[in-house]
Amino acid sequence: MKLLLNIRFVGTNYKGYQLQKNGITVQKCMTDAAKSVFDMPCDIVGCSRTDSGVHAVNFALTVSEHGKNCLSTSIPVERIPQAFNFYLPADIRVFRAQWVGEDFHARYGVKSKTYLYKLDVSSFRDPFEEGRSFHPDFPITEQDVLAMNTGAGYFVGEHDFASFMASGSKIKDTVRTIYGCTVKKENDTVTFEVSGNGFLYNMVRIMVGTLLLIPQKKIVPADIETIIHAKDRKAAGATAPACGLYLYDVEYGDYTQE
Amino acid sequence: MKLLLNIRFVGTNYKGYQLQKNGITVQKCMTDAAKSVFDMPCDIVGCSRTDSGVHAVNFALTVSEHGKNCLSTSIPVERIPQAFNFYLPADIRVFRAQWVGEDFHARYGVKSKTYLYKLDVSSFRDPFEEGRSFHPDFPITEQDVLAMNTGAGYFVGEHDFASFMASGSKIKDTVRTIYGCTVKKENDTVTFEVSGNGFLYNMVRIMVGTLLLIPQKKIVPADIETIIHAKDRKAAGATAPACGLYLYDVEYGDYTQE
Repeated sequence: MKLLLNIRFVGTNYKGYQLQKNGITVQKCMTDAAKSVFDMPCDIVGCSRTDSGVHAVNFALTVSEHGKNCLSTSIPVERIPQAFNFYLPADIRVFRAQWVGEDFHARYGVKSKTYLYKLDVSSFRDPFEEGRSFHPDFPITEQDVLAMNTGAGYFVGEHDFASFMASGSKIKDTVRTIYGCTVKKENDTVTFEVSGNGFLYNMVRIMVGTLLLIPQKKIVPADIETIIHAKDRKAAGATAPACGLYLYDVEYGDYTQE
Repeated sequence: MKLLLNIRFVGTNYKGYQLQKNGITVQKCMTDAAKSVFDMPCDIVGCSRTDSGVHAVNFALTVSEHGKNCLSTSIPVERIPQAFNFYLPADIRVFRAQWVGEDFHARYGVKSKTYLYKLDVSSFRDPFEEGRSFHPDFPITEQDVLAMNTGAGYFVGEHDFASFMASGSKIKDTVRTIYGCTVKKENDTVTFEVSGNGFLYNMVRIMVGTLLLIPQKKIVPADIETIIHAKDRKAAGATAPACGLYLYDVEYGDYTQE
């Protein structure tokens, strides 16, 4: 059996999820904590490679003994979150632990993921939102939010999202299915929410950067369809900053839970 | 005329509001910013002396020329927030500016203040709440919240709050009027809200620390009345940590707005 953990983290202080030579990452912290908890080197496999500064409300990862596909421990599974949290920095918390089968793969087994992107539309930039949302330097009216929500509707369905992939990415199959995509406003926060079966590199941030052309009067909602059809990164808008992005949820199909 | 500013700040990085010899404070940042904006030394008078780590959603302060009771500038008042924000760190923001008469006093003119105290009751300590709420190490049930709200009701009215003043405080008149005091739960956040005509040193944090004796089964709600009557700091609970406290609003009576 492998251990499946669900974690939440504030990404501000990390160079993203993935292990790197330069800079501390979430995977590095989890690898170190796992070694302390289980008293042996462990391999950590995450559901996604989040960028520097990106946050996670629910990020899934598996823990197994280094070089093996399983883990054995005498620690009761319900005590494991607490054991990890003892060794982790305060901006990373394990909130759930469960056993899964050896054929479970935290990355390739993902059925759907949901991301949120938060925009602070207060006139003065709420200091409590610093590093936790993006504050555009142009106004976004209630009407703009409705138009952005209309634009977001064009992302839903199976499309070739080549226009929404960071240039230089080596992925060949750029077709993805988006299950839902909405833009809503509550008080001074505009939230973009998207769920799909998979996302290309920087895809969510480019979707947001493109929808932000609407309040700037550079495109109208129906142009989103044209931009998708262009299959050209240059047709889309800028990549919105990392600080507004949250991996909100990750779902797997049926898996062995023993 | 004097300038009245409303600011919002995340208190985590500051040694409180008030100027200090050791450590950076909000008043220090505002004094430095005012000097840059108006190109002359200024005096800053705040509505309250918040402690190290305490936050403010709406904190009021006045700006006048150093040693004088007025300020003159050619900057239009609607441009002043932006001018300050250019010089301020990102965790302090000016969101409103207006002219008030020379007899306006930011501290002595306060008619009522409202504080919030936020408790994170998630089982694992939400990392996004780190430094922004207090996470008790004992459970708080829905029933506990109702009982705490009942207990909070005893604070309402005019009382001698000597039991709820930090020991060593030199204030003689410890009578204050509380206009409203409630405890509510929404998702994993329990919020204590209190408004009154004035607050003794550490009063809100001691009120919260005392109500927290209820879920710990050390007191029942009606004991709050007895603790008030004791007029003895030792009768009340511990001082809850600063990180959960927010100055939420400050109100003045009628004032000259020219």
